[in-house]
Amino acid sequence: MIDQNFSHIKVPTALLDSEQARRNIRIMAEKSTRQNIRFRPHFKTHQSAEIGEWFRTAGVGSITVSSVRMAAYYADNGWRDILIAFPANMRELSEINDLAERVDLSLIVESSDVAVSLDRGITHATNVWVKVDTGMRRAGIWWENTQEIEKLCRVIHSAKNLKLSGLLTHAGQTYHAATTDEIRKLYKESNRRLTDLRDYLKRILELDLEISVGDTPGCWLSDELGEVDEIRPGNFLLFDAMMMDLGVCRPEDVALVVACPVVAKHKNRNEVVIYGGAIHLSKEFILREEHPFYGYAVELNGAGWKFLGRDNYVVSLSQEHGIIRVTDEVLAQMEIGGLVGIIPVHSCLTVDTLGYLVDLQENRYDTLRTR
Amino acid sequence: MIDQNFSHIKVPTALLDSEQARRNIRIMAEKSTRQNIRFRPHFKTHQSAEIGEWFRTAGVGSITVSSVRMAAYYADNGWRDILIAFPANMRELSEINDLAERVDLSLIVESSDVAVSLDRGITHATNVWVKVDTGMRRAGIWWENTQEIEKLCRVIHSAKNLKLSGLLTHAGQTYHAATTDEIRKLYKESNRRLTDLRDYLKRILELDLEISVGDTPGCWLSDELGEVDEIRPGNFLLFDAMMMDLGVCRPEDVALVVACPVVAKHKNRNEVVIYGGAIHLSKEFILREEHPFYGYAVELNGAGWKFLGRDNYVVSLSQEHGIIRVTDEVLAQMEIGGLVGIIPVHSCLTVDTLGYLVDLQENRYDTLRTR
Repeated sequence: MIDQNFSHIKVPTALLDSEQARRNIRIMAEKSTRQNIRFRPHFKTHQSAEIGEWFRTAGVGSITVSSVRMAAYYADNGWRDILIAFPANMRELSEINDLAERVDLSLIVESSDVAVSLDRGITHATNVWVKVDTGMRRAGIWWENTQEIEKLCRVIHSAKNLKLSGLLTHAGQTYHAATTDEIRKLYKESNRRLTDLRDYLKRILELDLEISVGDTPGCWLSDELGEVDEIRPGNFLLFDAMMMDLGVCRPEDVALVVACPVVAKHKNRNEVVIYGGAIHLSKEFILREEHPFYGYAVELNGAGWKFLGRDNYVVSLSQEHGIIRVTDEVLAQMEIGGLVGIIPVHSCLTVDTLGYLVDLQENRYDTLRTR
Repeated sequence: MIDQNFSHIKVPTALLDSEQARRNIRIMAEKSTRQNIRFRPHFKTHQSAEIGEWFRTAGVGSITVSSVRMAAYYADNGWRDILIAFPANMRELSEINDLAERVDLSLIVESSDVAVSLDRGITHATNVWVKVDTGMRRAGIWWENTQEIEKLCRVIHSAKNLKLSGLLTHAGQTYHAATTDEIRKLYKESNRRLTDLRDYLKRILELDLEISVGDTPGCWLSDELGEVDEIRPGNFLLFDAMMMDLGVCRPEDVALVVACPVVAKHKNRNEVVIYGGAIHLSKEFILREEHPFYGYAVELNGAGWKFLGRDNYVVSLSQEHGIIRVTDEVLAQMEIGGLVGIIPVHSCLTVDTLGYLVDLQENRYDTLRTR
């Protein structure tokens, strides 16, 4: 029997709509299968062994993680093809070697020095992707720097213990797009930069390189995934306020809210104090007319939750407190001792900080933090 | 034998200068003792049982925490006088009752409805503070709303199981001050608002109420703590970039940096990619000319660390990646595979997310997250 009033929730809790999450998985898995593209979802979004199994059910065998520790966690949970989508950290060489011994491990590299050190230190043959920056300007070799990319490919290709897999990017520039059309355009542009590079390297080095791309906005919105070999989105599992505001998803696609106790009401300023702060939601923000905000307030009910519109949002966050600004109508419904749902700005960070999820059927899902 | 190269650090790690932290405790403890004011430090900054003992050595017997769970943790570690500085969350009533049974518990309340419910539900006499908002506009009854404050005091005073302790505020408006003089002014102004209220309530209700105040900027910078009965600062233990930029502390007063592996260098844009992202530092930010930044880069060395100036800072943070922008000189010193220190923007959030600290002598301090 399911408690429609969520009376089991006493503190800020990640509330998962598992049916919606599975629906999101299915959509992405079917799209990639149809286009014969390897689906290597990023598991940093949920960090849960159990939720990982939902992907396996959808036919997934290859996964992406963001740390060596997360790779070890999924290796312990039966995954055998794992890409660590973070520049190889040489200080963790012994942990990387332990992993390479037991799974088909892939690493990413963006400098020849690291490739040389890795080849020298690694004790098991390992797949290596060259990280290319197609426009995000975070990590990777800038796509126009063909000389450097070519040099790195040569180093990896001639290395004894490294197997060159191909070119990899995270086209995170899509997170700054103004419209969904721009997201689709940026996705295509990023892919074209990679296919041009691939074709060039094929001519020069006679290497057959794969292409791996990763962002949720581009992969979710583009009907045609393009000339790529694998996609690595993660966030689409849960979505969040960031994806809503980018136009990537609708409010009803979101599969995660944080249920927060209401602890005080301030009618004069249309604000409600919730138990739910930066250590629950994370301090990720969106700037709206130069003011940061931290998520949308939703109504919790027996069926899950109902979006109340963009006028109900988290206006500030301290360590444990949140302040939500709401309309008169919503304010009237709120009761001290009740719960309000918050669609976080960045669900991956929220799950990481909260450490576990509870679904609408009251099943608990532990994550790497709480395993 | 201490490893001067920090070769035991492989992943982002909270690095504590325990001597500096103890010095900071001593300064605050001596100031309050000298002025005969109860020092009730906020333990949310470190969340460590062991670091808590350093306060005990400095004569502290009363503490502040920010959650019921944190109160239980410190109760387990021998603390007997605990204030939960967060509006009483009625959904945790049974946990509050468990606590009230074994410690001298203090709660804060800002509405008569909650006071009535609490009185009805609590099974052990509990101290209650009335939360007053003296200017921060987060939680508490606005200081000019004397009618509401008086009403709440009457409700608590006449309650069977509640003992009215006094008026409490967190004058967090000091975090938005432009100068240190303004911080001192805001601290005094907040205190005057409380003492006026106290005197008024004494006349009207014949109650002797105490005053409890809390912010690190005001308590650290003011030589005279004023007519208050207790102070509850927490952040001064570690300090951070926020406190540096407010002028509250000097770089050398900071007792915490996050040691982060360097994983890539981008000479063309004077940027370095570090293993150290939002799940390590937290996404807390400071806006500088409308651009957020996330901490300062410092040089790690055998003695601890050296501040490199404000031109070396964290310009962006993803889940696991950080990008630091540095001067030519600093860039030349950085080596892939080496470590760089980051002074976080908000040390309390950083400690919460990292879950443990390691000091310069390689002692490890677990926190509530990892106990």
